[in-house]
Amino acid sequence: MHQPNIVLIVADNLGWGELGCYGGGALRGAPTPRIDALARQGLLLQNFNVESDCVPTRSALMTGRHPIRTGCLQSVPAGLPQGLTRSEVTLAQVLSDSGYATAHYGKWHLGDIPGRYPSDRGFDSWYGIPRTTDESQFTSTPGFDPSVAELPHIMQGTRGSASENVKVYDLESRRRIDEELVDLSLAFIQRNHATRKPFFLYLPMVHLHFPTLPHRDFAGRTGAGDFADSMVEMDHRVGQVVDEIDRLGLADDTLFIFCSDNGPEFRPPYRGTAGPWRGTYHTAMEGSLRVPFIARWPQKIAAGQVSNEIVHVTDLFTTLAALGGARIPDDRPIDGIDQRDFLLGRTARSTREGFLFYIKNDLRAVKWRDWKLHFFWEPEVNEGKGKLESPYLFNLTRDPKEESDVLAFNTWVLQPVLRMVQAFNDSCKTFPNTVPGARD
Amino acid sequence: MHQPNIVLIVADNLGWGELGCYGGGALRGAPTPRIDALARQGLLLQNFNVESDCVPTRSALMTGRHPIRTGCLQSVPAGLPQGLTRSEVTLAQVLSDSGYATAHYGKWHLGDIPGRYPSDRGFDSWYGIPRTTDESQFTSTPGFDPSVAELPHIMQGTRGSASENVKVYDLESRRRIDEELVDLSLAFIQRNHATRKPFFLYLPMVHLHFPTLPHRDFAGRTGAGDFADSMVEMDHRVGQVVDEIDRLGLADDTLFIFCSDNGPEFRPPYRGTAGPWRGTYHTAMEGSLRVPFIARWPQKIAAGQVSNEIVHVTDLFTTLAALGGARIPDDRPIDGIDQRDFLLGRTARSTREGFLFYIKNDLRAVKWRDWKLHFFWEPEVNEGKGKLESPYLFNLTRDPKEESDVLAFNTWVLQPVLRMVQAFNDSCKTFPNTVPGARD
Repeated sequence: MHQPNIVLIVADNLGWGELGCYGGGALRGAPTPRIDALARQGLLLQNFNVESDCVPTRSALMTGRHPIRTGCLQSVPAGLPQGLTRSEVTLAQVLSDSGYATAHYGKWHLGDIPGRYPSDRGFDSWYGIPRTTDESQFTSTPGFDPSVAELPHIMQGTRGSASENVKVYDLESRRRIDEELVDLSLAFIQRNHATRKPFFLYLPMVHLHFPTLPHRDFAGRTGAGDFADSMVEMDHRVGQVVDEIDRLGLADDTLFIFCSDNGPEFRPPYRGTAGPWRGTYHTAMEGSLRVPFIARWPQKIAAGQVSNEIVHVTDLFTTLAALGGARIPDDRPIDGIDQRDFLLGRTARSTREGFLFYIKNDLRAVKWRDWKLHFFWEPEVNEGKGKLESPYLFNLTRDPKEESDVLAFNTWVLQPVLRMVQAFNDSCKTFPNTVPGARD
Repeated sequence: MHQPNIVLIVADNLGWGELGCYGGGALRGAPTPRIDALARQGLLLQNFNVESDCVPTRSALMTGRHPIRTGCLQSVPAGLPQGLTRSEVTLAQVLSDSGYATAHYGKWHLGDIPGRYPSDRGFDSWYGIPRTTDESQFTSTPGFDPSVAELPHIMQGTRGSASENVKVYDLESRRRIDEELVDLSLAFIQRNHATRKPFFLYLPMVHLHFPTLPHRDFAGRTGAGDFADSMVEMDHRVGQVVDEIDRLGLADDTLFIFCSDNGPEFRPPYRGTAGPWRGTYHTAMEGSLRVPFIARWPQKIAAGQVSNEIVHVTDLFTTLAALGGARIPDDRPIDGIDQRDFLLGRTARSTREGFLFYIKNDLRAVKWRDWKLHFFWEPEVNEGKGKLESPYLFNLTRDPKEESDVLAFNTWVLQPVLRMVQAFNDSCKTFPNTVPGARD
C-alpha cells in the first residue's frame, strides 16, 4: 500500500474557543488566518476528545491506550519516575517499523531518563523539552535553587545515541523554541522529500502553554497582550509548515493534522477559553474534553467539512498506524478505533459512540452519543462536590454548558453507559494496568 | 431622499450562541441555514448590545433611550401600570410621520391599555400579544384562577380604532402564533409593494420565549426536543420573509435586520446559550449584553462581513429613523447614535465606544472599548455578591468569560468610564427620568 506522509502538529493547552475557525480569532485579539484556511481546506471536528491534561493525552496519542492502563496519569516533576514504560508500543515505533522516517520536535513529557526519550521510543531524532514549559520560569523565579530542583534544559537526541542537553530552558529560550521546532521540521520534510521516504513529523509545539510568551518578532503584534501575540505566532508557525508541504508539492500525499493536547489553561493571566463549552483542562467538562482538530488531505478529505461526530485522541494512534500500514499491537487492549472510513468520508458517522474519561485514578465521566454521565462534580479545577452519590446526566445538545441534570427523566441512558464501564473494567482485569511510576 | 423599506425581525430570548452563524446551529441540534445565509449576504455583528430583558430592550429600540429614562425597567404583570408613556416618541411614529407604512406583528410589551397599544403609538396596524409569552401557560396550569389573574389574549388593532381581543393566548395558540405573524407580514409586504409605499415591518417574533413550543408542523423535526424544533421553525419563518422580499424584487431596496431582544433564558428546560460568553438575560454579563444581529441590504451593505464593533440597540432607533428621513426628537436626550456610516461600510469603526448597562434602577456595569467595569456582581441570575465595594474590571478580549478582575493593573480605564457615568447622570438631572408605572 502507498504510505502517505503524516504531519501531526499538537498545540499545547489550546482551548476549543481560541481559533478563528472555532469562533475565537479576532474576538480574542488574535486572528488565525492560516489555521482557519487549513480548516476550510479539510475537516474540522467539533467533537474531538482528549484526556484531562498533557501527559495523559500524549501517552494516549502515542499508544492508543487510555492513561489508566499505562500509568501515565499526570505530570510529574523532574527527578521522580514518570513516562511510558518500555513495554508500551508507540505510534512512532510502529510507523518506523513500517518504513517511515520519524521525528519529534517539541514537548515530549513521556519519560525523562535514558531509554524513555523520544529517540529511544521510535523517533529517529528529536529536539525539544523532555517535560513541560512551566519549568522555563525556574531560572527567573526568586528563590529557585538548582541544588534541589533540576535545571531545565532543551535536549536533543538521535536513535541509538544518548540524548543530551542543548541549552537551559528559560524564558528567553521558551520564546524562541517554536521557531526552532519549525526550522527543524522544515529541514526534516526537505530531507525526506529528497529521499522520497514517507515521513511522520510529530510537532508538539510549545505554544500556548504558560508562560505564554511570544517570540520577540511577535511581541506587541496584536496590541492584546502576550497570549494573543503567541496565538498569532502559533498560527504563523503552522502556516510555515503548510507552506513547505505545499511548496514541495507534497500536499496531496500528506495527511496534515493540527490539534491540541487538552483544554485551555485555567490559571490567570494565561487562562484560555473553550468557547461555548464549560471548564478547562483538569476537569471533566466539555471544555476539557473537546479541543480543536483539523485534518487536511486534498483529494482524500473533502474540503470545508465540519462534523460533530465523536473522535478520541486514542483513535489517532490506530488510524494513523493503519494509514501507514503499520502493525497495531494485538497482545493488549487498544482503546483507539480505526477512523479511516470517517476521516476519508466513506461514512458520515464516526465509528465511535463514546468513551470513558478518567482524571488520574478516578472515572470522572462517560460520554455516549450526546449524553454525558458525571460520577464526580468539579466543573472548575479544585471547586466542586467531589464524588456524587447520584450521578449527573447532561444532554450536550440541549445543554452544552452541562448545567441541568436530567438523569431522572432519562435513566435508560444508564444502560449503554454502564455497559461501557463494565466492559472497560473487565478488560483491566484481564490486562492489569501499569502502576504509575513503574520502572522498566 | 429615497426611503428604503425596513424589515426588523426581533427574536425573543435568542442567545448569542444559538444560531449556526454564531457557532450553534447543528451543535444545538437545530441547523439554521436561512439565517446563516442572511448573515453571509450581509453584516453579522458580534458585539451588538441590548438591555437586560424584554421590556427594557423593546422600549430602548422604540425610543432610542435607555429604560432608566423612560421608566420601562421591567416586565410587569397584567393589571399593573406598565409601558411607554405617551410622551415618548416611538420609531414607528417618526417613520410614519415620514411617510412609511408601519406594522407591528408580534410581542409588544410596552403598554396594555388603550392609548398604549402599538396602533396607538405609530403603527398602522398590529396583531400579537400585548405582554409576554409565559402567559400562554396560564390556562394549562393547575390552579389558575381567571378571577384574580387576567385571561391572556392575542389582540389586534388598527390606527384610530380600539384594539381588541382575538383569541385566548394558550399553549396551542402559542404554537401557531409565529406562523400567523409571518402570514400577516407577507400580506403587509405585498400590500405596500403594490402601492409602492415604503414600509417599516416590525416583526417581534414569539420564538424562542418559554414555553418554547414549536408549531405542530415542526414538532419532532430535529429529534432534539422542543427548543431545537422551535429554532428550526424560527429559521424557517425568517426564511419565509426573506423569500417574499426577494420574490417581489425588493431586496436591494430593503434593509433587512434580524436580531434578538436579550440574552438567553436562564430557566431549565428552556435555558439557552450565549456561546462563548457568560451569563443570561437579567445579568450584566456579556451573554446578556451581546445578542445576534444580522443586517442585509444588497448593494448597500457588503456581503460576508463580521464585526466586533460595539453597537447598541438604542442606535437602531436613531439609525433607522435617519435612514427613513424621519425627525429625531431634539427636546430630550436620545442615547442612540447614528450608525449609518458604520452600517453602510463608509467607516470600519462604530461611532460608539461604550454604553451604560442598568438593570432596573441599578447601574450594573459600563462597557467601554474592550473593557467592562462591573459595579454589581451577579454572574448568574439571583446568585452573586450584590453591590461591589471595589468594582471589577475585565478585559473582554483577553477574558471573554469575565473571570479575572484586572482593575488593580488598569486603573486608567476608570477615567473614560466614570466620565461616561458622570455625563449620563448630568443629563438625567437636566431631563428627569420618568417614574416606572407613570400614567399618561
